[in-house]
Amino acid sequence: MHSRAGLRPGEGKGPRRLYGPEDGVCEAGRVTSALFDPLFGATAVDAAIDDRAWLSALCEVETALARACARAGLVPLAAALEVGAAADQLGRGDPADLGREAVAGGNPVIPLARRLRAAVRTAAGDDAAAAVHLGATSQDVLDTAAMLLASRACGTIGAQLRDCADRAAELAADHRDSPMIARTLLQHALPTTFGALAAGWGRALDRATLYLDSVRASLPVQLGGAAGTRAAWHPHGSAVAAALADELGLAAPDGVWHTDRWPVLDLAAGLGSAAAAVAKCATDIVLLSQSELGEVREDQPGDSSVLPHKRNPIAAITARAAAAQAPGLAATLQAAAAPELQRGAGPWHAEWPALTALLKYTGGAASRLRTSLSGLHVDQEAMRRALSGSADPADVTAAAQQVDEYLHRRRT
Amino acid sequence: MHSRAGLRPGEGKGPRRLYGPEDGVCEAGRVTSALFDPLFGATAVDAAIDDRAWLSALCEVETALARACARAGLVPLAAALEVGAAADQLGRGDPADLGREAVAGGNPVIPLARRLRAAVRTAAGDDAAAAVHLGATSQDVLDTAAMLLASRACGTIGAQLRDCADRAAELAADHRDSPMIARTLLQHALPTTFGALAAGWGRALDRATLYLDSVRASLPVQLGGAAGTRAAWHPHGSAVAAALADELGLAAPDGVWHTDRWPVLDLAAGLGSAAAAVAKCATDIVLLSQSELGEVREDQPGDSSVLPHKRNPIAAITARAAAAQAPGLAATLQAAAAPELQRGAGPWHAEWPALTALLKYTGGAASRLRTSLSGLHVDQEAMRRALSGSADPADVTAAAQQVDEYLHRRRT
Amino acid sequence: MHSRAGLRPGEGKGPRRLYGPEDGVCEAGRVTSALFDPLFGATAVDAAIDDRAWLSALCEVETALARACARAGLVPLAAALEVGAAADQLGRGDPADLGREAVAGGNPVIPLARRLRAAVRTAAGDDAAAAVHLGATSQDVLDTAAMLLASRACGTIGAQLRDCADRAAELAADHRDSPMIARTLLQHALPTTFGALAAGWGRALDRATLYLDSVRASLPVQLGGAAGTRAAWHPHGSAVAAALADELGLAAPDGVWHTDRWPVLDLAAGLGSAAAAVAKCATDIVLLSQSELGEVREDQPGDSSVLPHKRNPIAAITARAAAAQAPGLAATLQAAAAPELQRGAGPWHAEWPALTALLKYTGGAASRLRTSLSGLHVDQEAMRRALSGSADPADVTAAAQQVDEYLHRRRT
Amino acid sequence: MHSRAGLRPGEGKGPRRLYGPEDGVCEAGRVTSALFDPLFGATAVDAAIDDRAWLSALCEVETALARACARAGLVPLAAALEVGAAADQLGRGDPADLGREAVAGGNPVIPLARRLRAAVRTAAGDDAAAAVHLGATSQDVLDTAAMLLASRACGTIGAQLRDCADRAAELAADHRDSPMIARTLLQHALPTTFGALAAGWGRALDRATLYLDSVRASLPVQLGGAAGTRAAWHPHGSAVAAALADELGLAAPDGVWHTDRWPVLDLAAGLGSAAAAVAKCATDIVLLSQSELGEVREDQPGDSSVLPHKRNPIAAITARAAAAQAPGLAATLQAAAAPELQRGAGPWHAEWPALTALLKYTGGAASRLRTSLSGLHVDQEAMRRALSGSADPADVTAAAQQVDEYLHRRRT
Repeated sequence: MHSRAGLRPGEGKGPRRLYGPEDGVCEAGRVTSALFDPLFGATAVDAAIDDRAWLSALCEVETALARACARAGLVPLAAALEVGAAADQLGRGDPADLGREAVAGGNPVIPLARRLRAAVRTAAGDDAAAAVHLGATSQDVLDTAAMLLASRACGTIGAQLRDCADRAAELAADHRDSPMIARTLLQHALPTTFGALAAGWGRALDRATLYLDSVRASLPVQLGGAAGTRAAWHPHGSAVAAALADELGLAAPDGVWHTDRWPVLDLAAGLGSAAAAVAKCATDIVLLSQSELGEVREDQPGDSSVLPHKRNPIAAITARAAAAQAPGLAATLQAAAAPELQRGAGPWHAEWPALTALLKYTGGAASRLRTSLSGLHVDQEAMRRALSGSADPADVTAAAQQVDEYLHRRRT
Repeated sequence: MHSRAGLRPGEGKGPRRLYGPEDGVCEAGRVTSALFDPLFGATAVDAAIDDRAWLSALCEVETALARACARAGLVPLAAALEVGAAADQLGRGDPADLGREAVAGGNPVIPLARRLRAAVRTAAGDDAAAAVHLGATSQDVLDTAAMLLASRACGTIGAQLRDCADRAAELAADHRDSPMIARTLLQHALPTTFGALAAGWGRALDRATLYLDSVRASLPVQLGGAAGTRAAWHPHGSAVAAALADELGLAAPDGVWHTDRWPVLDLAAGLGSAAAAVAKCATDIVLLSQSELGEVREDQPGDSSVLPHKRNPIAAITARAAAAQAPGLAATLQAAAAPELQRGAGPWHAEWPALTALLKYTGGAASRLRTSLSGLHVDQEAMRRALSGSADPADVTAAAQQVDEYLHRRRT
Repeated sequence: MHSRAGLRPGEGKGPRRLYGPEDGVCEAGRVTSALFDPLFGATAVDAAIDDRAWLSALCEVETALARACARAGLVPLAAALEVGAAADQLGRGDPADLGREAVAGGNPVIPLARRLRAAVRTAAGDDAAAAVHLGATSQDVLDTAAMLLASRACGTIGAQLRDCADRAAELAADHRDSPMIARTLLQHALPTTFGALAAGWGRALDRATLYLDSVRASLPVQLGGAAGTRAAWHPHGSAVAAALADELGLAAPDGVWHTDRWPVLDLAAGLGSAAAAVAKCATDIVLLSQSELGEVREDQPGDSSVLPHKRNPIAAITARAAAAQAPGLAATLQAAAAPELQRGAGPWHAEWPALTALLKYTGGAASRLRTSLSGLHVDQEAMRRALSGSADPADVTAAAQQVDEYLHRRRT
Repeated sequence: MHSRAGLRPGEGKGPRRLYGPEDGVCEAGRVTSALFDPLFGATAVDAAIDDRAWLSALCEVETALARACARAGLVPLAAALEVGAAADQLGRGDPADLGREAVAGGNPVIPLARRLRAAVRTAAGDDAAAAVHLGATSQDVLDTAAMLLASRACGTIGAQLRDCADRAAELAADHRDSPMIARTLLQHALPTTFGALAAGWGRALDRATLYLDSVRASLPVQLGGAAGTRAAWHPHGSAVAAALADELGLAAPDGVWHTDRWPVLDLAAGLGSAAAAVAKCATDIVLLSQSELGEVREDQPGDSSVLPHKRNPIAAITARAAAAQAPGLAATLQAAAAPELQRGAGPWHAEWPALTALLKYTGGAASRLRTSLSGLHVDQEAMRRALSGSADPADVTAAAQQVDEYLHRRRT
């Protein structure tokens, strides 16, 4: 057993994010459509899910694994540091190179581990090279990287959702007493206030944010090895898994999950709920913006290629469109969640594009809604017209109490 | 304000389930296919979701609402008791009658409230009749009934899942050391034990059970009134909601959720995860039962209409088929989760068949898997053959440790 | 080879529908919810898809198969007639009996064939009994019965769609020149006519009807035998398949399709397109019925349990809800369309509930739209108000030309 | 009316594809993941669907529209040629520029038309600029461009499918008499031949190819104008639509389809069927490649990051994964197919990413299957072992006849 003197969690050249929004998007690593993605707000989350983010995450996991093995005494610390240095280098390379090499084996970890081994061998010899990808299978690295990537992307998405929720809360407070007609089945029902409607948006957005936060906090590392038994690290499997989680800031799993895809299903549920909360709010904005209602208006409505007078609530419209991608993508992930025996022969691979797209469009939807809400103009006069001028004060009072309860609960 | 002397939560003629499995299924109230549902295990959950269960739940909610209003002092206790008596009677009626009358207004609560009012008026006069459906809108009653129904169905489903998990744990313990080859991408990888595979099933089934339990525990009553403001109960809205929850054994919501469909989405996620855990296990049984592998065998395999020698693992096969309904149904619920303004003009109604079907097939899948697992025969000899007779003891030891960790965690 | 003297296609006691709408729905055989299905219009198509319809179709296929074998000289005519008589009897039995027996083997054909053999043996001896289910596998009978059932259900659905299209055409003709504002992205654009909008509905409904007709016309019988080789009928396989198709009024396939599920996918596509055409029209009716617009109104709008003044376009609303079931169900069928090797171990079985439900809700959606359209009131005055009284005559003329072209094309 | 002397269909600088596979992929215009897409075969279809392909298609449509208007005498020929020259230039620009400008209005046609007008004005003055985007709305250009793009992508996908089908036919012919055991529900049934299995693949692939061809041939141009009435071209609307179709090699529609999304649904159905045919074949290859069966083997099986002895049928595995994206994406398109009134406020926009992804993954799946099939090694010895050495000659003969019928039908 190697000495692990001197290595403390988080210390030294441990994994850190190789690329972030601040680095700009390298064209060669994009997973985006430069033509369409801005429309759907996906630029907000792109840097967290593009090819560079994936490549970085894969390399960070290899580094963290080597360090975790060192912490368990399975490899020398010096070797782990070499692995980290080489992975750092590889993580800054061109994802396309890896992509081309990945075809033969069916995933990018196979060529990545090969390159990493070669780089460490060149730099530090065969013994150090033996510390690369020790005991791991491709799925360990890919699943863990996916969790790291999802965790970061959910951080970005959560920030967008939180801004939306804050703005909804502001609208609720500002319009606590602004009477409007409630419309059920799209027919006039009884009076409410715009504040009560906005409180409904806010409550849903708050809940979705918290849900996504809790999913994010539980995202685990994967560590199973070739057969899911952790044989290569035995009897230190649990310790290595815990150290890996610690290195990456992810959760330690309660066991291997190579064929129990709960973290992916939890993400699908959390992102799906977020998309629904966004879609609900965006739908209401589109409906209240109708020419005949005019009760709300985006401050930068869209024009048209032919009718300059149009005032299209285009941020809300495109938020709806982005959110509409979610149910189908979540269904794809759910249908893939019964992989065969010890590793799915297709279902596992099917998760990658669907999960990436689900992160992209949920984040995009939240970003577009944020734009819509941030400058939303509320026309109280139009609301009064729909009420024919008057509302029973009792209805307004009751609606205002709903707002108060929401705001009170929110603060506590 | 009426006296509420003498009424304590849960006391007297409070809501109770009007029909249960023990009553048998009344043919007139079925939502089942007598020809196909037994195949898919749906009979296990039928009594909890069929027309009688729905009708009963709707009537129980009307009773509970009247009692909650009495507890808040909004109606006399005696009137609430009359409502309960009449609702109890209506709940034993023919769902088809209500179904026919429901067409005009688009939901069964409209004719139910009308009938209930008429019955109470006849029995106890106009004042008592005023206690019927007080302040409520159809959605309050229907959403709450849906939660009550889902809660009961999830109880049944959870029991099936728990049995499956227990059986998987038993298999894991019994075969902790039984070596088998792990198959990744359906190719031989390295040895594991059958116990480790079964531990993976059990872990997933345990988790899905707990998830569904937690979803179930959070299912709330709905109380919003015509405009979602609780104006009719003002300022007692929260108190009535809390009492309603207490009467029915459901959760008190943190606000109205008429257009924030989180409980439905949570059910979709919880049931979807359960279906996935079942599908995974059933898929493995089907694969290991293949003629060439023969590592497991159902104890009552299916025959064929033409080949008597067939040994089809038919319980696992039909569990897969039932579970395969879930992703599409969950997507339907998710797509419906952005209803328009204060009540969806279609999205709300779209939930009823999809949610009922999702409960039905998830429960059915669990029931079929229970059958498959309960008599599953494990052929250690066949497993040894696939290993060409030997397995590295280190692999077996590592696999056994996975089993031990799982069993330990399960006990604690 | 047996004599086939005297047997002509369609002659004698050939397969005929054992139960139809005219027989009423036997409670014991229902697949419906008596409480909810009427809301979703499913009663219109119920008799074509319920348990009795399935049982009848299965028995009709057994009869047709025996007759087809007789026509190919593989069994005596007399034996085929005995099979027909016994199948006719069985087809009038209780589907629940068969359902219970079907569990063991995983499909209802196994006990059906067994019962049929026993019945024929009792009536006419062993030789005649040998003519039962000759050479067939369960899938042959079940797939063919599914096609027969789908064909009939599509007939009913097509009739509903045709009525909808006719009514849309009538509205287009009547309102060829009735000016209204076009709304793009739900904002006022330029004038059109209500006739042009209705022409759009009609064109979509016509197309969907024709599409469904063409799918229906191509639905084939299945004949493959235990291994999909038609060995048991060799060298008369194609002849038996053709005769089977002839007996049942279905298409002769260009080969076995036991694991090439094109007819199911075609049904999913045809029904999905029909559901979309219905949903589009229903959505427009709901939107134009909004309190602020009031440009159309259903003649029997729904009331509410609490607000008697509501005028909910409830037929259109429930048409939307029924149609909203389609995308998820179609996705389930598509995901099941890659069955394993010579017969799917789950994917095949998964089709039955999803296909039945897709027929049910598509038919229901069409039926509800028919109700909505059949008494739709058009308020030209409200339309003029939205135009502020005037529309450029050039816009009206152009819109009217769209109507004329549509009506002209429709007539030819 | 302007002179249209000298302009003949297809003559002069008419629309042509600005970029094709031969130009290489410009990094700035990619819609791909360089890291993952190669795995899923998406590179095969990328050039037909990436940002440059979209931009090119949009510009080609603007050119074609100007030429069509010239052919109808609505604009001078010279102006149309100026539009074509400017569009050609714009089409070679950076899609990202347009993408950024597209956000404000919600689609890229708004800034494109603006830029095009400015460019033509600069080059040829105001009168020529008036020929740009004449009478059109954004949806006319975007829908038509989507059809052009889909048509081209389906051409590529069809070519992949055809290669797959040809290879399956070859396998069917070569192994017409190679006995193997048929497996139903993954259990041994009766003998068949590998040729009969391959004939099943081929039949499905042939049918899917023809289906996609027929969908492709019917893809129409869109021409409706701001309100869907074609008012701006009146009375030449139909003539302009026909000329537009002629210029672009697309079909002339039987009317506007701005809110009747049949071409998108037809694409979803055609691509979905293709994906299913691919998935079925790939699934069989994965199953027959199992270590215990070994009846087929890819000639370049994948290795693993840890187990060099693995022989993963990775092309088939990734074909399955790519095809698994289809059902969810098709469901997204179907759910979007009921847009509001004269232009969907979200549903329309939701089509763009889902359709692009569906083209990408269906093409990718076909490409991966092509790789799998092109070098598929068939192990007759292994097949004989599964038969325990012998098969009833009658079964082989019958299976061979299935092959013959398929090959005969294929030739005619």
